[in-house]
Amino acid sequence: MNLIKQLNWRYATKRMNGTKVPQEKVDRILEAIRLAPTSFGLQAFKVIVIENEALREQIFNGACQQPQIKEASHVLVFAANKKVSQVQVDEYMQLIASTRSISVDNLSGFRAAFDGIVAGTSEQNYAWCARQAYIAFGVGITAAALEEVDATPMEGFSVDALDKLLKLEEQNLSAVTILTLGYRDEANDQLVNAKKVRKNKESLSEFK
Amino acid sequence: MNLIKQLNWRYATKRMNGTKVPQEKVDRILEAIRLAPTSFGLQAFKVIVIENEALREQIFNGACQQPQIKEASHVLVFAANKKVSQVQVDEYMQLIASTRSISVDNLSGFRAAFDGIVAGTSEQNYAWCARQAYIAFGVGITAAALEEVDATPMEGFSVDALDKLLKLEEQNLSAVTILTLGYRDEANDQLVNAKKVRKNKESLSEFK
Repeated sequence: MNLIKQLNWRYATKRMNGTKVPQEKVDRILEAIRLAPTSFGLQAFKVIVIENEALREQIFNGACQQPQIKEASHVLVFAANKKVSQVQVDEYMQLIASTRSISVDNLSGFRAAFDGIVAGTSEQNYAWCARQAYIAFGVGITAAALEEVDATPMEGFSVDALDKLLKLEEQNLSAVTILTLGYRDEANDQLVNAKKVRKNKESLSEFK
Repeated sequence: MNLIKQLNWRYATKRMNGTKVPQEKVDRILEAIRLAPTSFGLQAFKVIVIENEALREQIFNGACQQPQIKEASHVLVFAANKKVSQVQVDEYMQLIASTRSISVDNLSGFRAAFDGIVAGTSEQNYAWCARQAYIAFGVGITAAALEEVDATPMEGFSVDALDKLLKLEEQNLSAVTILTLGYRDEANDQLVNAKKVRKNKESLSEFK
């Protein structure tokens, strides 16, 4: 599978045809998201995977009625932690210790690296967690392209409405972005054959 | 190339061996970054690609003296726009028009979608642009893994020092994250065989 070819194949699909994405493809996309690196490895985000039609109807109404919400096979909502807590960091230390069969006592130096983060404001924490979620979002978009699954990144929604609907606040989370997975509706998507618009290499990069 | 296998192969390499990454691999990683989707397609970021050793020595001193900065083949600094300007949006409309052979007049509706963004504060703009840069960052990390090039995502650096050093402020940019590209130093990287730590599927995702 050629990555560049697949990244050229993909586009922000505006209309999807309702076809279900095979479970093994969804699983591999979610696994890629799970494996995405994040700062300190904390994974301070969650992905809500939605197939339920009634729920999607409600999201649709809070997301500028963008048709992909209803026409997609799966709607992935990326939600970032609003505040990093000591408990969360402790759980992460336990996870490292159990995964690597070491004692948490050996992690005290690494643990201390989180002090500044936990002491930060909610605003600073959320901005940082959101960026981490976006790394996984980028990995997920790439994984979908490699699976030949169409994916639409979407930021146009009411955060408050979605947080409420998915009960994210009580999980210390807030929605940052959406990725719909499905298949392009070639007959009805007017962007299906539109040429991809990107800055050229020289404009996007600087070489030193 | 199996993406899941490659994402398991990669890790945040702590020591690199100085071997140069072949130019065609660097080019494909940069091309993947260039093709990454961003909100409205604006690509409100830039990637500074650094090989120069003297410059890397200076970055090293402002980045907690993390050895990868000097041991890597290439250092990629992702910098996001601090403020989205009307001029920038106009240039983007011109790019769409010329790429798709249409008149900019046909883009007035789309153009209007940027009004709210341009009217936003620098803080709001920068937070939004940073997230877009992180999508490309995630795509770049994935591309490197597929090329079997080691890549270390790094947030631990002085933003002010790096902005000054790379003259980013005068380009309306500010550094958000670094990706070093190179090859793991198996003899000296104590994390080379460490088991990857990730939340399990049930903890990271919620299915509805």
